[in-house]
Amino acid sequence: MTHLLITRRAALALAVALPLLLGALVRPALADEGMWTFHNFPNAKLKQQHGIELSDEWLAHLRQSVVRLSGCTATFVSAEGLILTNHHCAAACLAENSRQGQDRLADGFVSRSRDEEIKCSTQVADVLMGREDITAKLAAAVAGKDDKTAGEIRKRTLTQLEQACVQAAGTTDPRRCETVSLYQGGQYFLYKYKRYTDVRLAFAPEDSIAAFGGDPDNFQYPRWCLDMTLLRAYENGKPAKIEHFLPVNWDGPKAGELVFVAGHPGSTDRQLTVAQLEALRASLPASLLRSAELRGRYIQAAQAGGETGRIMSDPLMSLENGIKVRRKQLDALLDGTLMAQKSRDEAALRQLAKLGGANDPWVAIAKAEQRGLELQLPLTYIEGSAGFNSSLFRYARTLVRAAAERSKPNEERLREFTDSSLVPLQQRLFAPVPVYAEREKLTLSLGLMRLREMLGPDHPLAANLFKEISPEALADDLVNKTTLGDAAVRKQLWEGGTAAIEASTDPMIRIARLVDAQARTLRKQFEDEVESPIETASERIAKARFAAFGTAVYPDATFTLRLNWGTVQGWNENGSAVAPFSPLRRAYERATGAEPFRLPDSWLKARDRLNLDTPFNLSSNNDIVGGNSGSSMVNARGEVVGLVFDGNIHSISGSYWFDTARNRAVSVHPAIMKLALTQVYDTAALAAELGLKR
Amino acid sequence: MTHLLITRRAALALAVALPLLLGALVRPALADEGMWTFHNFPNAKLKQQHGIELSDEWLAHLRQSVVRLSGCTATFVSAEGLILTNHHCAAACLAENSRQGQDRLADGFVSRSRDEEIKCSTQVADVLMGREDITAKLAAAVAGKDDKTAGEIRKRTLTQLEQACVQAAGTTDPRRCETVSLYQGGQYFLYKYKRYTDVRLAFAPEDSIAAFGGDPDNFQYPRWCLDMTLLRAYENGKPAKIEHFLPVNWDGPKAGELVFVAGHPGSTDRQLTVAQLEALRASLPASLLRSAELRGRYIQAAQAGGETGRIMSDPLMSLENGIKVRRKQLDALLDGTLMAQKSRDEAALRQLAKLGGANDPWVAIAKAEQRGLELQLPLTYIEGSAGFNSSLFRYARTLVRAAAERSKPNEERLREFTDSSLVPLQQRLFAPVPVYAEREKLTLSLGLMRLREMLGPDHPLAANLFKEISPEALADDLVNKTTLGDAAVRKQLWEGGTAAIEASTDPMIRIARLVDAQARTLRKQFEDEVESPIETASERIAKARFAAFGTAVYPDATFTLRLNWGTVQGWNENGSAVAPFSPLRRAYERATGAEPFRLPDSWLKARDRLNLDTPFNLSSNNDIVGGNSGSSMVNARGEVVGLVFDGNIHSISGSYWFDTARNRAVSVHPAIMKLALTQVYDTAALAAELGLKR
Repeated sequence: MTHLLITRRAALALAVALPLLLGALVRPALADEGMWTFHNFPNAKLKQQHGIELSDEWLAHLRQSVVRLSGCTATFVSAEGLILTNHHCAAACLAENSRQGQDRLADGFVSRSRDEEIKCSTQVADVLMGREDITAKLAAAVAGKDDKTAGEIRKRTLTQLEQACVQAAGTTDPRRCETVSLYQGGQYFLYKYKRYTDVRLAFAPEDSIAAFGGDPDNFQYPRWCLDMTLLRAYENGKPAKIEHFLPVNWDGPKAGELVFVAGHPGSTDRQLTVAQLEALRASLPASLLRSAELRGRYIQAAQAGGETGRIMSDPLMSLENGIKVRRKQLDALLDGTLMAQKSRDEAALRQLAKLGGANDPWVAIAKAEQRGLELQLPLTYIEGSAGFNSSLFRYARTLVRAAAERSKPNEERLREFTDSSLVPLQQRLFAPVPVYAEREKLTLSLGLMRLREMLGPDHPLAANLFKEISPEALADDLVNKTTLGDAAVRKQLWEGGTAAIEASTDPMIRIARLVDAQARTLRKQFEDEVESPIETASERIAKARFAAFGTAVYPDATFTLRLNWGTVQGWNENGSAVAPFSPLRRAYERATGAEPFRLPDSWLKARDRLNLDTPFNLSSNNDIVGGNSGSSMVNARGEVVGLVFDGNIHSISGSYWFDTARNRAVSVHPAIMKLALTQVYDTAALAAELGLKR
Repeated sequence: MTHLLITRRAALALAVALPLLLGALVRPALADEGMWTFHNFPNAKLKQQHGIELSDEWLAHLRQSVVRLSGCTATFVSAEGLILTNHHCAAACLAENSRQGQDRLADGFVSRSRDEEIKCSTQVADVLMGREDITAKLAAAVAGKDDKTAGEIRKRTLTQLEQACVQAAGTTDPRRCETVSLYQGGQYFLYKYKRYTDVRLAFAPEDSIAAFGGDPDNFQYPRWCLDMTLLRAYENGKPAKIEHFLPVNWDGPKAGELVFVAGHPGSTDRQLTVAQLEALRASLPASLLRSAELRGRYIQAAQAGGETGRIMSDPLMSLENGIKVRRKQLDALLDGTLMAQKSRDEAALRQLAKLGGANDPWVAIAKAEQRGLELQLPLTYIEGSAGFNSSLFRYARTLVRAAAERSKPNEERLREFTDSSLVPLQQRLFAPVPVYAEREKLTLSLGLMRLREMLGPDHPLAANLFKEISPEALADDLVNKTTLGDAAVRKQLWEGGTAAIEASTDPMIRIARLVDAQARTLRKQFEDEVESPIETASERIAKARFAAFGTAVYPDATFTLRLNWGTVQGWNENGSAVAPFSPLRRAYERATGAEPFRLPDSWLKARDRLNLDTPFNLSSNNDIVGGNSGSSMVNARGEVVGLVFDGNIHSISGSYWFDTARNRAVSVHPAIMKLALTQVYDTAALAAELGLKR
């Protein structure tokens, strides 16, 4: 259900807590495998396999119709800014617009007119407008430098290039410039986005139909999820005028039909070295255990029901999704087949590359990963989010660091505080998102308990924090006494800069100050001793790979725009055929009346007037991962014929390789969306805007 | 703290849920490593290393002074049946004798006279009296049979031999006969125990001093835990007359002193093949995740405080201990060093053994383990305890199965229902142990939720159970309506046999009946397709190992009596020396006033009159694992000089190998026990019985 979403937080946590996503791919892409960039789309391969080619105009139109959301993908589907994406991609917006007695996640939301559309305060929508190759500039900047120095210069250069790009854009265009590393540093680009900062919610069904089957059904197929939402981009307080958008073909695709998915796959690790995969395998259990315990805490706390039940259940869906993903990733890494294949591939590339000897990049990476595992525990608990797991603490850390960083020259700052990052950072920081004390206490106390357990009670930080107070009591105290839950207080502290932070007596600010030096030291150690040597070594491997394959291979996913193709098809599960379409009828048959198999009243009432043969979800062999959530599936005519929202259970190993036989993408079928908009929900205006008659 | 305890339930779950503990050891024991049987004690090696030998009388006296408890070890320390063991080994007894307002775990217990000693209703105490080698009988019985048949005959033969042994003992001696496989089937023995079935509690300190530091300090060192309890064995309602018991040397040992540990290490996997270790590595994460989530549920539920707090906290200590053990075991298996060493050892033995070809036992084991992993999920959830995780369900399954099994000839029954097992089974089943509905609902609902998640909502069992009800509601309903919490009801159903079970409308009995056929099928599949081929292959490897080393190697731990030696010493932790003794003073310094670093009032009040230099705990390089909890450490004169209760964090990898440099056992020092009994607690009579003056 939600596995395709990459939250910004998860992406950051990943960057800090897990080994870097770098390495070497040996074999060119097989069959329909591949997450291709638009500027290096393999038309020859497509023609050879499916007999067609895509024109530059077709590609440019599609590229500009696709939208990047926070951790998700979406598509413009009307000239007036209507955006189609998954329900679970709007979960944060639904939650932040819920209050006691008004649960928009549970009840859904239908705007009867544009006036009723509600603001998603932290949502932005980006459209990729252009790119610039900066590989040569980077190479020149770091030439001849040692690993640590090269790492520092690389960061500084990227900041300078982003800064120059934004300045060139001027103030009229809300342009977003982001540097991107492809092929593990084999290529660097500047990607230029148009950004919409005013995004509103127009339609969302009830959670119980959007995520029918909940966690038990997540990553399963067949499925029955109406995982759709309609948002709208605004400019200057009015619906945005959109040139490039896609029509929906409400009949959907046929079995076997060629279909394309354009989207933003978050990250894959297909080109990691074996040493990196082993390090990942060794580090996954700790993060899984933290999540499993948190899951237990939320579920038990939610039993209180009522408002507490709602508050504690809200984060469950995304947490459970993350558990399932990492559990199956770990299974894949523990399965000898995958590792044996990776070892063979690596041996073949090493033989081709002839980079052995004192400077062997594979050896350098293995050494750096070893160091990474040594640093992991304190890094995760002190600099990562495992120890101080609280949005109030995250506000505090952001304020404390921002004050310190903003007083430095732009290129010397931590990357998340450079000028081009400050605007979105402020948007998130000042958004009046509700903070729930009860939930904060739960997550923070758990984090602090495990910090003491994992670092040991005699670790200087633990001994200092818990000298006369338990982790639970400290968490209660911090959450009770901080005022950072108030957006106005955060704004004031931000504007007050270093002086305000130093003068603050807010206990959460105090704690953030207390751990900051140690947290920064750990991060610097990790960057210098783990990231930098891996970056340098990976660039050398990337060169060897280019020498062997050029760009006939695709780069690992980096939450940047990609395009792939496949066909609508099921698969063979241990001898049984799984059909590509799931009929509405079975949803009614599977409904038990109890969550997560409870159908909402709207669908129960509508039953008699619905065609129960309507296809609900569909599967195809498109190569997708987290971040592709909300991607449109389009046919060769450029029409939307599906809304990607999940993969099957075999798709999770897609992090490491593409299992041609069983890896499948799962989408919402257009026919069920049409049924919902015309026969279940009262969405007259929206339906009309989409060309539907009731 | 509690890691050395093997609960009977854990041992059973292990037997069902995890790969078998079988394999091949290549290298003879190094340094002080080794868990030797009393009948094959390597005096020559001891003499070579430490210049002394142990006489047969010394060994026989020690053997008969050592007691096996449920999952623990203990020692007779007086002629009137007084037994010294760990506090955590009596946790179940303390919990079952607690009521609202009388929390014996929290408050401790001091009997002023024998009349006040309280019954531990499920505790037995066994003393090993003799043994018989039955290897040849087993070999003759299975000669020439295929794997599956050999497996069935092996079980039947073991039952027959136990039965004959018990019959030979007659009725006067409460003798317990157990067959034991050593060296992975290289040798089989009948072990004959004297069993005390009336065990009572005489003294226990408060949990907060017994387990000072709780889970954060568990497996850490230095430590400050008074993890001691005094029990007493009774016969015919009177304190048992004991011939063999050990005196305590209250001064304890010196640094560097040679010390012996006699006890019942539960299980080690040092002789597993690489394929078995890999299967174990692949299966550990799932069980860890279940435990981590349960931990979160208990901790959150315990926040209600009061009686609910007590009920929900009781099982935490043992659960957290299990999590830490398996987490560090997994770390060891994920660390390349261990696996590389195991691979080298195995390659060396395979070369020596020359058993390659079509019948290669290592290949056979790898194949069987692969099958085991395929069966694991349904086996764990339907036959193991993961799905129906509830003591009420366990009662129901025992009753349902006992009725069916008791009507079969003895040797055709499941092994846990043979005649010789029925008496202890009834003791546990009829014990009036409190059952807490709230806790039952928590564990059962979690089990059922995960059963549906892991097997999938469309698995026939899940679809059947949850057709119209959620797992949570089903758990509530079962717990609310069953009457199996009443020991009298259980007794009635037991005595009613098959007719009573078939007529029963108790919902828990109904559910146990519903799943029984499928559960038995899975178990049979596992026995036939996994256990039996592994047993046969392992016996062949064992023969090869005997050919190479004879009995110069020790067998893997099997919760049978073992003896090892070591010296009192600390170790070097990343360049820092860890001292072998911890002074009382530091316990006061580390006390925060908050659990688990809260000292009880008794110790706070006594502080001024205590010698703060008194050594509290001590470390030594004895080779121990879970099951050794409560073992006495004895000096060469046969005096108790320590009470083993834990290992350091490096001892956990002792499941797979002995890390000479860092694996350490952790014991309670006699001096702190003397202080407790004479200056902190009012234990006049007990102290006198132990030869102490106040």
